Amino acid sequence: MDSKKLERLRARYADRGAFDGDDPVLLRAARDVQTGDGRRTLPYSGVPTFLGLPHAPSVDGLDIAVVGVPMDLGVSNRAGARFGPRAVRTIERIGPYHPTFRGVPKGRARAADVGDVPFHSRYDLAHCLRDIEEYYAGLRARGVRPLSVGGDHSITYPILKALGKDAPLGLVHIDAHCDTMGSYDDTKFHHGGPFRLAVLDGVLDPDRTIQIGIRGAANMFWEFSHASGMTVIYMEDFMRMGLDAVIAKAREVVGDEPIYVSVDVDGFDPVFAPGTGTPEAGGLSSREGLALLRGLQGLQIAGADVVEVAPQYDPTTNTSQLAAQILFEEFALMTLGEAG
Amino acid sequence: MDSKKLERLRARYADRGAFDGDDPVLLRAARDVQTGDGRRTLPYSGVPTFLGLPHAPSVDGLDIAVVGVPMDLGVSNRAGARFGPRAVRTIERIGPYHPTFRGVPKGRARAADVGDVPFHSRYDLAHCLRDIEEYYAGLRARGVRPLSVGGDHSITYPILKALGKDAPLGLVHIDAHCDTMGSYDDTKFHHGGPFRLAVLDGVLDPDRTIQIGIRGAANMFWEFSHASGMTVIYMEDFMRMGLDAVIAKAREVVGDEPIYVSVDVDGFDPVFAPGTGTPEAGGLSSREGLALLRGLQGLQIAGADVVEVAPQYDPTTNTSQLAAQILFEEFALMTLGEAG
Amino acid sequence: MDSKKLERLRARYADRGAFDGDDPVLLRAARDVQTGDGRRTLPYSGVPTFLGLPHAPSVDGLDIAVVGVPMDLGVSNRAGARFGPRAVRTIERIGPYHPTFRGVPKGRARAADVGDVPFHSRYDLAHCLRDIEEYYAGLRARGVRPLSVGGDHSITYPILKALGKDAPLGLVHIDAHCDTMGSYDDTKFHHGGPFRLAVLDGVLDPDRTIQIGIRGAANMFWEFSHASGMTVIYMEDFMRMGLDAVIAKAREVVGDEPIYVSVDVDGFDPVFAPGTGTPEAGGLSSREGLALLRGLQGLQIAGADVVEVAPQYDPTTNTSQLAAQILFEEFALMTLGEAG
Amino acid sequence: MDSKKLERLRARYADRGAFDGDDPVLLRAARDVQTGDGRRTLPYSGVPTFLGLPHAPSVDGLDIAVVGVPMDLGVSNRAGARFGPRAVRTIERIGPYHPTFRGVPKGRARAADVGDVPFHSRYDLAHCLRDIEEYYAGLRARGVRPLSVGGDHSITYPILKALGKDAPLGLVHIDAHCDTMGSYDDTKFHHGGPFRLAVLDGVLDPDRTIQIGIRGAANMFWEFSHASGMTVIYMEDFMRMGLDAVIAKAREVVGDEPIYVSVDVDGFDPVFAPGTGTPEAGGLSSREGLALLRGLQGLQIAGADVVEVAPQYDPTTNTSQLAAQILFEEFALMTLGEAG
Amino acid sequence: MDSKKLERLRARYADRGAFDGDDPVLLRAARDVQTGDGRRTLPYSGVPTFLGLPHAPSVDGLDIAVVGVPMDLGVSNRAGARFGPRAVRTIERIGPYHPTFRGVPKGRARAADVGDVPFHSRYDLAHCLRDIEEYYAGLRARGVRPLSVGGDHSITYPILKALGKDAPLGLVHIDAHCDTMGSYDDTKFHHGGPFRLAVLDGVLDPDRTIQIGIRGAANMFWEFSHASGMTVIYMEDFMRMGLDAVIAKAREVVGDEPIYVSVDVDGFDPVFAPGTGTPEAGGLSSREGLALLRGLQGLQIAGADVVEVAPQYDPTTNTSQLAAQILFEEFALMTLGEAG
Amino acid sequence: MDSKKLERLRARYADRGAFDGDDPVLLRAARDVQTGDGRRTLPYSGVPTFLGLPHAPSVDGLDIAVVGVPMDLGVSNRAGARFGPRAVRTIERIGPYHPTFRGVPKGRARAADVGDVPFHSRYDLAHCLRDIEEYYAGLRARGVRPLSVGGDHSITYPILKALGKDAPLGLVHIDAHCDTMGSYDDTKFHHGGPFRLAVLDGVLDPDRTIQIGIRGAANMFWEFSHASGMTVIYMEDFMRMGLDAVIAKAREVVGDEPIYVSVDVDGFDPVFAPGTGTPEAGGLSSREGLALLRGLQGLQIAGADVVEVAPQYDPTTNTSQLAAQILFEEFALMTLGEAG
Repeated sequence: MDSKKLERLRARYADRGAFDGDDPVLLRAARDVQTGDGRRTLPYSGVPTFLGLPHAPSVDGLDIAVVGVPMDLGVSNRAGARFGPRAVRTIERIGPYHPTFRGVPKGRARAADVGDVPFHSRYDLAHCLRDIEEYYAGLRARGVRPLSVGGDHSITYPILKALGKDAPLGLVHIDAHCDTMGSYDDTKFHHGGPFRLAVLDGVLDPDRTIQIGIRGAANMFWEFSHASGMTVIYMEDFMRMGLDAVIAKAREVVGDEPIYVSVDVDGFDPVFAPGTGTPEAGGLSSREGLALLRGLQGLQIAGADVVEVAPQYDPTTNTSQLAAQILFEEFALMTLGEAG
Repeated sequence: MDSKKLERLRARYADRGAFDGDDPVLLRAARDVQTGDGRRTLPYSGVPTFLGLPHAPSVDGLDIAVVGVPMDLGVSNRAGARFGPRAVRTIERIGPYHPTFRGVPKGRARAADVGDVPFHSRYDLAHCLRDIEEYYAGLRARGVRPLSVGGDHSITYPILKALGKDAPLGLVHIDAHCDTMGSYDDTKFHHGGPFRLAVLDGVLDPDRTIQIGIRGAANMFWEFSHASGMTVIYMEDFMRMGLDAVIAKAREVVGDEPIYVSVDVDGFDPVFAPGTGTPEAGGLSSREGLALLRGLQGLQIAGADVVEVAPQYDPTTNTSQLAAQILFEEFALMTLGEAG
Repeated sequence: MDSKKLERLRARYADRGAFDGDDPVLLRAARDVQTGDGRRTLPYSGVPTFLGLPHAPSVDGLDIAVVGVPMDLGVSNRAGARFGPRAVRTIERIGPYHPTFRGVPKGRARAADVGDVPFHSRYDLAHCLRDIEEYYAGLRARGVRPLSVGGDHSITYPILKALGKDAPLGLVHIDAHCDTMGSYDDTKFHHGGPFRLAVLDGVLDPDRTIQIGIRGAANMFWEFSHASGMTVIYMEDFMRMGLDAVIAKAREVVGDEPIYVSVDVDGFDPVFAPGTGTPEAGGLSSREGLALLRGLQGLQIAGADVVEVAPQYDPTTNTSQLAAQILFEEFALMTLGEAG
Repeated sequence: MDSKKLERLRARYADRGAFDGDDPVLLRAARDVQTGDGRRTLPYSGVPTFLGLPHAPSVDGLDIAVVGVPMDLGVSNRAGARFGPRAVRTIERIGPYHPTFRGVPKGRARAADVGDVPFHSRYDLAHCLRDIEEYYAGLRARGVRPLSVGGDHSITYPILKALGKDAPLGLVHIDAHCDTMGSYDDTKFHHGGPFRLAVLDGVLDPDRTIQIGIRGAANMFWEFSHASGMTVIYMEDFMRMGLDAVIAKAREVVGDEPIYVSVDVDGFDPVFAPGTGTPEAGGLSSREGLALLRGLQGLQIAGADVVEVAPQYDPTTNTSQLAAQILFEEFALMTLGEAG
Repeated sequence: MDSKKLERLRARYADRGAFDGDDPVLLRAARDVQTGDGRRTLPYSGVPTFLGLPHAPSVDGLDIAVVGVPMDLGVSNRAGARFGPRAVRTIERIGPYHPTFRGVPKGRARAADVGDVPFHSRYDLAHCLRDIEEYYAGLRARGVRPLSVGGDHSITYPILKALGKDAPLGLVHIDAHCDTMGSYDDTKFHHGGPFRLAVLDGVLDPDRTIQIGIRGAANMFWEFSHASGMTVIYMEDFMRMGLDAVIAKAREVVGDEPIYVSVDVDGFDPVFAPGTGTPEAGGLSSREGLALLRGLQGLQIAGADVVEVAPQYDPTTNTSQLAAQILFEEFALMTLGEAG
Repeated sequence: MDSKKLERLRARYADRGAFDGDDPVLLRAARDVQTGDGRRTLPYSGVPTFLGLPHAPSVDGLDIAVVGVPMDLGVSNRAGARFGPRAVRTIERIGPYHPTFRGVPKGRARAADVGDVPFHSRYDLAHCLRDIEEYYAGLRARGVRPLSVGGDHSITYPILKALGKDAPLGLVHIDAHCDTMGSYDDTKFHHGGPFRLAVLDGVLDPDRTIQIGIRGAANMFWEFSHASGMTVIYMEDFMRMGLDAVIAKAREVVGDEPIYVSVDVDGFDPVFAPGTGTPEAGGLSSREGLALLRGLQGLQIAGADVVEVAPQYDPTTNTSQLAAQILFEEFALMTLGEAG
């Protein structure tokens, strides 16, 4: 490095603050990040909210509501996802800038952490699902798009019922399980069947549905996925096709109409997401999952969720951190996607 | 049990809800607990706040502000207490009813979680202490009593500076260490010396100060406590005197004037509070500590804190749970104490 | 020590095996412990069963059945006790000799681990309770006394319904909560109310019921305990009375008729039992709890349980170990009690 | 989706249970899974056994015996694998359906968890190995194929001695270490040498042996592997060749004669298997390891094991879960392999 | 506080460093603590050694050698104590000042961490014990008193053989188990029998031996303790007698002749010492144990140890911290005891 | 395998020790490993040092000094890296043989663990950096190359100032963050900016600097890297280019002049390195990172470090194990690199 260059660098950079440069996107990002009085907020300070967004007592006036759904009565094995929203709220340092889409989602939409869905009873799965549907119908009536943190996967059925009421949605679904099983234990509302119920209710379009990461002994239960016309990408398919081909396939399947994005953290290998109720060895890596989501840029997202985070099984908090990052990717897709 | 009694019980209790009875205190407590629409709030739902209190963006109009002070630049050994406020907020099921004082603190005062003290720099201990002092001076100017969650114990010095400005306060101090050490490592602001600084600044009255639970190798540093006239209850004293005598001594020392209550969780045995930076074997049990605090009922509390919760060292969350309970006890002392 | 004594010791002890001595009780204990071929079983080998007892596919011919009840749909906060039976089975080195009663319980009764109560649905609390009642009615019909591992405390109501059908039982109940609350969240079957239901069904005699270790904010809910005539020993009472007086009181209350013993691990301080769903600071120590149970020697025990072990919150396994020890104490009371 | 399709789906699927479809393999799988009375077994209920298989007091009449070998006296560093069998038994939700081979292993063979090898002494490595050899000789004499869970890797030597007595076996060996070291610390029986001993005893054919995943500082010890003609796939080789080529190489090396499959969990990266005694950074992923095993379909498996699970170092239970899945893959190879 | 006093305090204390005061003991302590160049050593810096003592390559010239004995081949259940020395070395902030004896042990004796006993084989229990005996015989020949960190309790037998060669020692023994069992599993060298062997070898005087904290199912094995004349304080005795009476009894039993002090961390309740191989519910608290040791002040200590620390079971490091504190208490007894 | 071959194998190998073979490299390695008296050192014995190297009180006469830098005052989020050196020292079984370079680093250089950099104050970031610079200037003056274990990444700036004083160094930098940010919170010395400061001070040549693994929201801050001419390999680049191309690029960028190697463990995915302060999902795998480092063989290494290990967040110790392996790779590059 010649001395002139060093001088130039010194002249320009020796006394600048954290946000240097003239890139207008970054400048705006910097402004979005900084608080009014010049103080940067500590990552670990204040009342914890999803993605560090403001907490809003009401959803009125919002474009996007980030909602917790602390309900896990639908699990078949290990409970705990009722604590998922708390765990994801507590993760620090996610966003606000999106490195691939080069933008700050919260600068593009009025978004807030609106708290959790209120429930009439912590003891009644079917009633909880009704409470959820009613809540999301309210969001939809106000034109607010939801971004949700479960809770177990049974919550996605009432969400789809609310969002797909007028026209069935497409779906990009990352999971170890297709979740299209029928009734057992005297209920159809368990976390193994939401997408079957959604199809049968006409709120989810199986032809525009792709399920990615599927594996494990439960594979014996997914006849409905195939019978209804869903596209199922088993892990063997994933490994054979490669990431780029899977992304292309997903875009081809869901098309340009509105879709929902649903991520069950057990789609990831248990090493990346131990904190969940029904782990299956041999799943996606965090790198693959994040790239998959980023590959959806430009699609119309009616809503999205990340579910099945059970922090009791997550001593490193890796699962919650990954879930928070996924939430941020979904937030970015809903706000910056068009820039793609 | 004769059948008539059974009939009477059935007649009265068979169809009642969770809150039965005619006791006016309990009825009011029940009302305080219930939300407006008859739904009980789930312990694990919503944005986590201290003691489940509402989050207030401003301190105006409050009687009591519960404040987080996420700063641990004053520690001598293990850092981590900067995450103390987050950890204590996340604990569920503390209060709202106080079983010994038979009342609901939040029914007696306008209280809220007002977030955390804002800092200019996460890298400068002395500056952080100035930020804290300024913040608490603001609370005091508005007539708001503070209830604080640290952070390391260095935070109590600027709090006392703000609260004791006009008249030095008395102090009930539970800790393994007297924290009256002088300078070392080129600073006097470390967490081993706040109470020395407060005395030398004239905001803490050593004659009305009692320090309880003291033990360990650091005992060689506490000359100032004795020289200034503080009452020091070493653990050997505690074991010899017994709980009731210690409570009586504390009340005798601090008298009827306003006091501050400061609880360092390392006053408890590491078994009860592993999540802290400078644990010392052989400390108080949770039962003893809670009884000690309850024994202060009726005293004038100008403010209180619980400090040195480092959740990184707390795999069971026992430390955070105990700290949250202590916070609730302090809240109760500040609201229900007069009922004693 | 003179040389003659040393010679005598050498002569007698130099070549003996682990079980020396002529004490007939110990000799029988040794025989009970040893396997037929001279091999001692490793504590960590084999299919894990409760207390290392044989696993029995059928309850026929048993005196005592140790039963798992992996159901936690009744919890109000943290789920997880559905994994309690697995966790307690996995603990090694409990028994077989009882050091205070000086005997080997399994030498005095035909006892086995009979597996877990079968459930029709993991999603329906009320149905689960019916399944439990039916199962225990079957045990009772065969003259088999049950020793149960929960599961949450809601399971004790159907157990009492089965066991107290002909004559209401007395109860020694260790817990942080009286569990005599009424309905909320549209159900009366939650884990906060089993003993109220049992009284109202006439299967539990409140006059012969003592509840020990009660504390915390939920104290506002226990009117029924007092109204129905139960004896409630709050933690303050316990600390004031002392252990011996509490034991005497318990024996006085329950008298000589058959009783049930129910231990919720949250009766212990969270330090001793972090692995539970609704911890309350300031509870019993393990030493106190075990002494309490041993103090019941000689009473008629119709059945007993230990409940609310949630191993997800128990990184040291201390909770499961304590629960396994409690289970053994209860087993000892049911077999060696008469020797007291 | 047109409305006719929706109607057809509703007609067929609206009222079906968990197991729909006409696929005869799946129907049989469903029958294998369901218990007689229509109740599905909870994943977390009952006495824990390997893969949820029945516990058999005797090996008579079995095709396959799943055996625990809780012995870790052969480790060179961190002990703990003596608790491996207990840990693997405790994992829920592995199988019963194999998603790639499309079948239910336990439907194809009489298989049971037969408990653990009994040992004369927990203190004598050489004696333990004799006990193991004797036990497996008994299995072999009865025509029962063993599937074993260690224990440390020293256990594989006596197993091979028993199984390869008449004709040396081939071997597929996944591990970070070749385990063909000579004597040190006055013994040749440590866990670093079983395959050397087996070759020198003529029970293992080095020409039909492949070792996969080898890496780390211990690489200096593996001359015997090369000298004896084993095929060693170091991790660099693995990364360069790719998964498919490694599978092809393995099949080529071992040929069509009977082989043994031995999986040391330290063959996997410590991230996938932290719970082991001698972790080595840079190993296989779970996806690669499972695919490797599935690639062996159709080979003749005389026996198989998974070893070196030390649950003390496995706070997420990821290691035990992976080991249980490997056990299931081996079980599938021994029963469904021919269907490939 | 009047203003004059405040002025006096300010005059004297405003500018002093951490070590103020004129107390000659404290001044000397301060000098002992400070490093030459005025820098205080960080608690967490440098190569970890026992109690922060210097590491000595040779024992020559030492008064006291702190020795690690990383051997756990004698355990009957959970291994892991081989990592005990590493775990205890890693604990920071123990000493250097002793708060009760008011002195700095390392100022009174040439003491160092001399590393660990070298072993010929990590696989041979009997050989390891010979290695230990030889090593301690060497210490004794050089007049160096040993302070040891186990390892399992089997190590104390060879230590006593070396130290008690000329005259049998007395013993203060804190433990859940008497460790006077005979042979089983073909060895007498297991961790359940060191004190029997020591008596039979004439190196331990049973009449001058007291065993404190005994409890649990293993109580059936302690005939030898009683037969040989040891004083056994069962936990029930301890609770009945109280701490002061137990200390008095211990002093009476061991008298003025040289004694050995041996502390098995399982003497403490598993809550205080979860990190151990054979935990027993219902043991000593840290407060009681430390007071017990301090009660031995003035006795002649020929050597001391703390054993059975298994850090794999100690997620909070509470066990290691307690063990380090015990080590420090023993060090203080060996150096400052005479000041009592 | 024919019988002759078996005989030959037996003849040669039946009675050999752990180190067989005639390979001169391995023979020398074996000699380097063995201690003088034929005893192999246990992995878990003795005072823990970096890579098991001898502890040297002085740096005189060394070629390479392995230094701990326990300072984390520069972190922006989670503290804890002050305990990094202790954690890395405690890892057992790293080296001494390097499997890819086929040699024993410690046989090629006089190397030792020289303890930690002494600091004047644990409370003053800027002063700590001056202490570090002074210490490393001393090493450089003595011709000792440093190999360092942080501490947070702010420590690399003063190290570079000392090492690059005469001629700016090249840099291979593995990290999630470029660490070329300007001032914030009133300081430029935080862990987000060391490489900017080093360039502006003329001790680091940006044209010979490559930064690999960059990702996450902080990407908005790295203008300086681009402006100064550094080569930045974002994770997307890494995934697109593949490992071999990245290695080639790195070699091309840094050329043949002396370079520094700096590895922040957060360059790895949080799954591989959870124990760090600012984790970012989607990073390198351990396999990739180790291969990257090995790809630098033959380059001139003036010094190297591994930083940001925060063991409080590392329940499996995977992070510390990976860091210790990285340290060993760096040690190998500095000693065996020329053999490439």
